[in-house]
Amino acid sequence: MKILTCLLSIVMLGGVSQVLAEIQSDKIEQLISQYEASLNKSDPHSIMTLYSKSPVFMPQHSKAQIGRPAVLAAYEHVFQKIDLDIKFTIYEIETNDKSAWARTSSVGRTTILANGMKINEGNNELFVFKKEDGDWKIHRYLFSTTTPRQ
Amino acid sequence: MKILTCLLSIVMLGGVSQVLAEIQSDKIEQLISQYEASLNKSDPHSIMTLYSKSPVFMPQHSKAQIGRPAVLAAYEHVFQKIDLDIKFTIYEIETNDKSAWARTSSVGRTTILANGMKINEGNNELFVFKKEDGDWKIHRYLFSTTTPRQ
Repeated sequence: MKILTCLLSIVMLGGVSQVLAEIQSDKIEQLISQYEASLNKSDPHSIMTLYSKSPVFMPQHSKAQIGRPAVLAAYEHVFQKIDLDIKFTIYEIETNDKSAWARTSSVGRTTILANGMKINEGNNELFVFKKEDGDWKIHRYLFSTTTPRQ
Repeated sequence: MKILTCLLSIVMLGGVSQVLAEIQSDKIEQLISQYEASLNKSDPHSIMTLYSKSPVFMPQHSKAQIGRPAVLAAYEHVFQKIDLDIKFTIYEIETNDKSAWARTSSVGRTTILANGMKINEGNNELFVFKKEDGDWKIHRYLFSTTTPRQ
């Protein structure tokens, strides 16, 4: 009987642990969705509310942008040049106690503000998230184009 | 006395846990170093010994390559076109029980095999690692150029 109780407890704990992981995963899905919305609104300050206290953003054709002032400046620079209209697809999210990662891709259109030209946009992304004060934040973020080499 | 013993145990466990994390981190450094050597030797089969059972490799200008046959084919395709001579710099490694991630950059030269032309190469990278049968393996890998837009 003791063994049965013990086994039942393990099964229940496994179930609880899975539910907790799903809750964390849902929170990260929401975070990516907020990031998508802020990108499409060209809103760097809204984006910064989604980043951790010590973020690294790695825009293509640039060195890594380290720390909040550098990350903010990088987004401000991007939004001076282009207007994005993109949609993320999330393929997988793995959460650990203090960090998590996600693999996504994005497709859509970029408008070059200087001339109004619209070009197709497509990227693969890897996000690393950090839990800060109970909330998940974007901690490391790298994307890379999927469009064929010109 | 009991409290003191308890506190000492916690401090010791903290120390042990840090040493264990450093050992894991060292193993991942070795893995990245092996990856660098295999890339520079243009050896796709050696590279595949470093990847997990269900890897995703995201080469630039391409959709994500999912699964071992697709990842192998992608590296074979790369090595038919270019010869790499690059050096990775590791900035950070975070290990959890079953997964880990690292942020790196790489610089060096690429030789275009078709015409012998040499070009400068520079990338940011994010790796996600998975522990399989006690060994760390590359599980997700994305890189993106740092060279200015042409």
